[in-house]
Amino acid sequence: MKPPLRIAMAGLGTVGGGVVKALSNPELAERADRKFDVVAVSARDRKKDRGFDHSAMVWTDDAAALAKSDADVVVELIGGEGGVALAVVEGALNARKHVVTGNKALLAKHGARLAALAEKNGVALKFEAAVAGGIPIVRALRESLIAYGVEAIRGILNGTCNYILTQMEATGRTFDAVLKEAQGLGYAEADPALDVGGGDTAHKLVLLSSLAFGTIPDQKNISVEGIEGITTEDIRFAREFGFRIKLLGIARRTAHGIDQRVQPAMVRAGTPLADVDGAFNAVMASAGPAGRFFFEGRGAGEAPTALSVIADLVDIARGNFGPSFGRPATALRPLIPADPGAASSAYYLRFEVLDVPGVLAEIARHLAESRVSIESMIQRGRSPGEPVSIVMITHETSQASVERALKVIATSDKVRARPCMIPMEAA
Amino acid sequence: MKPPLRIAMAGLGTVGGGVVKALSNPELAERADRKFDVVAVSARDRKKDRGFDHSAMVWTDDAAALAKSDADVVVELIGGEGGVALAVVEGALNARKHVVTGNKALLAKHGARLAALAEKNGVALKFEAAVAGGIPIVRALRESLIAYGVEAIRGILNGTCNYILTQMEATGRTFDAVLKEAQGLGYAEADPALDVGGGDTAHKLVLLSSLAFGTIPDQKNISVEGIEGITTEDIRFAREFGFRIKLLGIARRTAHGIDQRVQPAMVRAGTPLADVDGAFNAVMASAGPAGRFFFEGRGAGEAPTALSVIADLVDIARGNFGPSFGRPATALRPLIPADPGAASSAYYLRFEVLDVPGVLAEIARHLAESRVSIESMIQRGRSPGEPVSIVMITHETSQASVERALKVIATSDKVRARPCMIPMEAA
Repeated sequence: MKPPLRIAMAGLGTVGGGVVKALSNPELAERADRKFDVVAVSARDRKKDRGFDHSAMVWTDDAAALAKSDADVVVELIGGEGGVALAVVEGALNARKHVVTGNKALLAKHGARLAALAEKNGVALKFEAAVAGGIPIVRALRESLIAYGVEAIRGILNGTCNYILTQMEATGRTFDAVLKEAQGLGYAEADPALDVGGGDTAHKLVLLSSLAFGTIPDQKNISVEGIEGITTEDIRFAREFGFRIKLLGIARRTAHGIDQRVQPAMVRAGTPLADVDGAFNAVMASAGPAGRFFFEGRGAGEAPTALSVIADLVDIARGNFGPSFGRPATALRPLIPADPGAASSAYYLRFEVLDVPGVLAEIARHLAESRVSIESMIQRGRSPGEPVSIVMITHETSQASVERALKVIATSDKVRARPCMIPMEAA
Repeated sequence: MKPPLRIAMAGLGTVGGGVVKALSNPELAERADRKFDVVAVSARDRKKDRGFDHSAMVWTDDAAALAKSDADVVVELIGGEGGVALAVVEGALNARKHVVTGNKALLAKHGARLAALAEKNGVALKFEAAVAGGIPIVRALRESLIAYGVEAIRGILNGTCNYILTQMEATGRTFDAVLKEAQGLGYAEADPALDVGGGDTAHKLVLLSSLAFGTIPDQKNISVEGIEGITTEDIRFAREFGFRIKLLGIARRTAHGIDQRVQPAMVRAGTPLADVDGAFNAVMASAGPAGRFFFEGRGAGEAPTALSVIADLVDIARGNFGPSFGRPATALRPLIPADPGAASSAYYLRFEVLDVPGVLAEIARHLAESRVSIESMIQRGRSPGEPVSIVMITHETSQASVERALKVIATSDKVRARPCMIPMEAA
């Protein structure tokens, strides 16, 4: 057996503590054919009871100083797209230490540069824990699905959003009510903006997109829409049409470039992504002639995330360093973005209108002028003087056409709120 | 870039041809940071048009002679648990060449010995293509899900069986009719025994079980039942109860040893395994505190299987050799089998009986004597003098208790055929 792999931990929160505990399992050493010694840690409060003995570990307040420890690997679980986390990772790579991180924001911003730095120094930079918790999707894209390339990825990448949407559907309660409950249960952050606004999904999607397409992680060319505007009414209508609403991260290769987007989408009930419930995450990858692959598992929490950190550590223990983004960092190309408006789909549209004569005719006329044709229409909730909802499903059309029509319709004095527009995902 | 990886192909059927074609993709060389040269091949008919130019490859009739070629890796796609395939793999490993194989029968029988031989010679023996086509489940068990170990695997591992069961449900046709059609379409072999009898699933399960539990692949301690006895009636009753019938490979750690079995099982509709349709494969792995992981994809055919062969070749090109079964071959332990009769479940039971007074009472008495209690019962198809079906769902009970009762019941002169017994899979 080789000498133990020496590990420094930057961050000892839920996941970090879980990693330290799992590393002490003797069965793990047997599987990896190597022991794991946590030799140094940096975390805020040394006195806090973390459920394991850290008396033999060097403790430092300055996480960046871990680069000077005698560790072989630094595990970064601090988070954030810069600041201390960046200093820790950069310092460790410069000191020729391997890095394992769960930091999606950091890699979405600095991924290509850090991967190049790792390669220059002959060390590994691994990040399975950054995307979809325990699901081995980074490894799958980096190592398994590469024979024919991948032309599209669709993922449910944020457990908080998926929990909220699932609960809204199950209980009929509003977004605000379910969010508040999720915060009480610890499933949602006190500041939920990064989750429900789609930003967290975007960070993760950017990494998957890079792995799939060999592009430099690019968070500028991505359209991001969260779930804050989804109403119980939308969810009810979706069910009537045989669909469920999910927040999807989508990255696909088109004839004109790569389309990256985060958006609520209608997913047909009975298809794998529609059935992903609660706090689970899932990724569907289309691999050319090899067909589609679907991966599902827990997307967050101590054990699923620690599992992915440990998979990366075992890789390093076994000498499997490999390129961070599935090919040499120098071979990553700038992403050529597709025009988001060129995307084509059927759309669910919901208008809140005053119940006055002529409103439907006006909406229909504006849609027709943008060449958007209607497949079906439902009008509900008529009570005199009150606003009513008009819901339509369009035939397949371009996003730009629908947006053009909605922009005009929104200016009508008969339309009360911003119209809602949700694409219907094929299959 | 390193010099090209030199590959010898033993077997150039559908999958082998697909591998050669995919290896010539320049994008693959970029991803792997290495070119792939097929330098030697062995296949039956040199003159056959295989859709690629093999004039520059050394062609040999004797596959075992590939061990003497200047290849770095031998890809074995001949098949069979011994004979030429074994000679090719053993010869290559002895000549210190890496081996990539899709041969489940070979590894189920000789896996531990061949893995030890590979390790002794410092080369890789990889087999992603042997299990579940394109699904990267070997890699997931070997590298990803190891932090907490895996306590159970449930898999749909044979596309032919899944296609037949799916078609029987969709069309209401009999097993024989659907099998014949599948043979006509090329989805089933002329001799379907290995598929429909469960033997192919057993080979694959034995490999997954070894990867999950660190045991020597063991195909002696496994109970195997195929789908030949499943009737359209069973499938109809399953649907009435909210279940679907799937042929599952199941390996689980119990308090008394490892339970390995292949059997038709009732899987609750709406759960991931129940929704796996047609020729797809899927694996559900339970990873302790990290929860369950679900993987789905195409289980056979040129591209999915070639995809897995190529993933292994890229691993080797990148220098990721790793242990074949996820830990050193010398650390693999003999499997301690659980008593299959100790397994506990609710069961679906179907009896074909003569429609005479007292038959239900007799069956109920024998079940009660074995302490099997009935949760629900349906009796259908009464026409005087004709046999009728009695279908029951039991409360949770041990397999041994049910088997004991059925053995007695089968001797009754009022019972026409061997009673059918299908476990109801929890969750």
